[in-house]
Amino acid sequence: MTTTADTLETYLEANRDRRLASYEALLRIPSVSASPEHAGDCRRAAEFIADELREMGVEHVEVAATGGHPLVYGDWLRAEGAPTVLVYGHYDVQPPDPIDEWEKAPFEPLVRDGRMLARGAADDKAQVHMHLRATEALLATRGRLPVNLRFLFEGEEESTSLNLDRWLRDNRERLAADLAVISDTGFFEGNLPAITIGLRGITYLQVDVVGTPVDLHSGVYGGAVQNPANALAHIITALKSPDGRILVPGFYDDVVPLGDEDRRAFTALPFDEEAYREELGAAALVGEPGYTVLERKGARPTLDVNGIWGGFQGEGAKTIIPASAHAKISSRLVVNQDPDRIYELIRDHILRVAPEGVRVEVSHLGGGLPSLTPMDHPATRAAVRALEATFGQRPLFIREGGSIPVCASFGSILGLPVVLLGFANPDCNAHAPNESMILANYETGIRTIARYWDELAAIPGELRA
Amino acid sequence: MTTTADTLETYLEANRDRRLASYEALLRIPSVSASPEHAGDCRRAAEFIADELREMGVEHVEVAATGGHPLVYGDWLRAEGAPTVLVYGHYDVQPPDPIDEWEKAPFEPLVRDGRMLARGAADDKAQVHMHLRATEALLATRGRLPVNLRFLFEGEEESTSLNLDRWLRDNRERLAADLAVISDTGFFEGNLPAITIGLRGITYLQVDVVGTPVDLHSGVYGGAVQNPANALAHIITALKSPDGRILVPGFYDDVVPLGDEDRRAFTALPFDEEAYREELGAAALVGEPGYTVLERKGARPTLDVNGIWGGFQGEGAKTIIPASAHAKISSRLVVNQDPDRIYELIRDHILRVAPEGVRVEVSHLGGGLPSLTPMDHPATRAAVRALEATFGQRPLFIREGGSIPVCASFGSILGLPVVLLGFANPDCNAHAPNESMILANYETGIRTIARYWDELAAIPGELRA
Repeated sequence: MTTTADTLETYLEANRDRRLASYEALLRIPSVSASPEHAGDCRRAAEFIADELREMGVEHVEVAATGGHPLVYGDWLRAEGAPTVLVYGHYDVQPPDPIDEWEKAPFEPLVRDGRMLARGAADDKAQVHMHLRATEALLATRGRLPVNLRFLFEGEEESTSLNLDRWLRDNRERLAADLAVISDTGFFEGNLPAITIGLRGITYLQVDVVGTPVDLHSGVYGGAVQNPANALAHIITALKSPDGRILVPGFYDDVVPLGDEDRRAFTALPFDEEAYREELGAAALVGEPGYTVLERKGARPTLDVNGIWGGFQGEGAKTIIPASAHAKISSRLVVNQDPDRIYELIRDHILRVAPEGVRVEVSHLGGGLPSLTPMDHPATRAAVRALEATFGQRPLFIREGGSIPVCASFGSILGLPVVLLGFANPDCNAHAPNESMILANYETGIRTIARYWDELAAIPGELRA
Repeated sequence: MTTTADTLETYLEANRDRRLASYEALLRIPSVSASPEHAGDCRRAAEFIADELREMGVEHVEVAATGGHPLVYGDWLRAEGAPTVLVYGHYDVQPPDPIDEWEKAPFEPLVRDGRMLARGAADDKAQVHMHLRATEALLATRGRLPVNLRFLFEGEEESTSLNLDRWLRDNRERLAADLAVISDTGFFEGNLPAITIGLRGITYLQVDVVGTPVDLHSGVYGGAVQNPANALAHIITALKSPDGRILVPGFYDDVVPLGDEDRRAFTALPFDEEAYREELGAAALVGEPGYTVLERKGARPTLDVNGIWGGFQGEGAKTIIPASAHAKISSRLVVNQDPDRIYELIRDHILRVAPEGVRVEVSHLGGGLPSLTPMDHPATRAAVRALEATFGQRPLFIREGGSIPVCASFGSILGLPVVLLGFANPDCNAHAPNESMILANYETGIRTIARYWDELAAIPGELRA
């Protein structure tokens, strides 16, 4: 007599070639969401996924219009009493440029040295495909799934998920679930299994400093007027000290101090500061005193100028006082900081420190909530068990400095806790030439997903507590 | 019996129509030095002037090659024992854009309301032409000039006098003189006769702040690395306080404090701060405490960002830490400050205050010496007498905040004191549409020039003391 797990493994073993062929077929579709000429390819990728979902027995499958590229929805809700999980991935990919740095054409998949090479091989077609295959294997071998699943695969993640929030709001009623699982992240350096528990939020603003209607001759007027570019430098300097501390009054008020357990999770991560510095090509790593590099970029808020401009930028010397100077500035936020509130604090500080003699305007260009799934959340603990059982290693807890907007949307629009269960190898070259997925991650990850549903099925009460 | 002055006046009166026709003929030549397609026109303007010089009896006239547009040289050196004056003007003009804002085509001169309208009508063809006419009138009525004159009319002033310094150095031996007179400035506001006694110098530099070889994702890396744009803002802020005081150690060491007479000369100038502010469109006039606006821009050194750039400058939000950030910065200098020395002080200060974690490079993009002709220099006093005798008003002493590079070159290369004897009305619209010269300035200025040579001829010993 074979166990259920054995049956699943036998099925997966038997279908390896067919599975890779399907994975490659998906990779051959150049679904570059940023390029209007690939709109048809985005739709083809969506249809491809929808067809697979239907074929394996997922229900209510639709290729849903969003105003941009369509998203694929489908569900299987016959596991009465079991938890319901919203599964998220995206079928669109980054543009492949620069194409001549690829070993093979980016949309002609190549298997070599245990890796699949192609644009999207890791980000995020691999992970979408792993969910398809885990579901297919479970339905084929058991005739049912251990949990209820709602699939949501979008086609605009690489172009800022422009239409997703509206679709989520429009469909909130029918998306009821206990948990969202996003598979669009990766393992830790060295390809160590990891669960991303935190993503920083962001608030983004622009500062416009205007002196005069036109540029002035710096000889004729220099000394008589405030220079907008000097004034802008003064403003920026008043926002953050060179050692990384943010100087905006009230900025840290809502930041929850890192607890001992948080700091231990960071300390547990294998990390070589000098190798990291060298890889970045920076002269030194500089950041907030009292925190490690990983804490600074994962669990502490920051403020950065993203762009600055004003006056003469050409070769040689032009003697003007710029009419105006401008900066894009954003602040990465950690959990409990509100993007709108932080924007207001920064704006007020800018207007307070603005030098005399210039007009300063601050405008909000958007924001996103930070997110943090506690390490001791039952859904997180279940993911730990699933990863440990399949990869043979207890996963690390990591925090990403960046934001995945949909992650916050699942929280703010649908009210769901989110588990970031991702399998990409850290050297996958997402967004760069020669993107690749380690096939062992892909294969084992399929087992992890199936195992995760079993783990969740065992704790419906805890999830709803 | 008629006096010499009467004879000269009679001649000038008799030749008014012919004179204006010649002035207009010069204005019809579109000698725009910045436009390669006007190279032939620049040469035509040079030949026009050379022909006039030859016709009136000036000797050794040549249209000299410079590598760029030619310059016109000619001399008359038969006033034995009398002072020798090097006369400078330029025949090239600014581009006429925007053309559709002109009342008439910019190279079709129009006389209206006592003004000559055309590109170059004031800057500087009027003043070149006034020297031609004064010389012609003197030679025609007296058969000789009261002083020895060397004429130097260049064709690249509006495109940075690129080749003039080399020509001056190559011809230093044969340019021996007692004094240089530059006629390329103007009267004070209200068209009050004025002598420009000071021009600020300049030192110009670029700061390049490099963090990493490529832009970094501000989410993934924000907090771990120094941001080059924030670092650049910190550097700029360390150079000058928002109230206009320069913070570079040693910067003011060589500045000669303004004396009582200097300050009285500024106080004597009619100046309405509020009207000036309003005309500029600035929210407030801001500058070094303890000095008036005219002192700040005329007689005090300053420091201005001329341009700044780095990172994302487009619409919307892009979340990067710029790989690098850059600024063009220049400092206007007053007499006794050395551009090279000041560059070194600024550079050293920048490198001293540069935050950790970025590579900072400073490069020198050029400099020019300040110049100041004392109010009590005999050549200045002679100019005062000539202006007062002809315009009926004692001229004001003014200092221009800008630099006329050739002014410093006459000092540094030829070792000559310089008198800036200019006649343009302040509302002449130099470099703008509808440039115009008040014809009364043009006419009376011709008399001033002739009178000035007589005044100088009377004091050869004082000039050489």
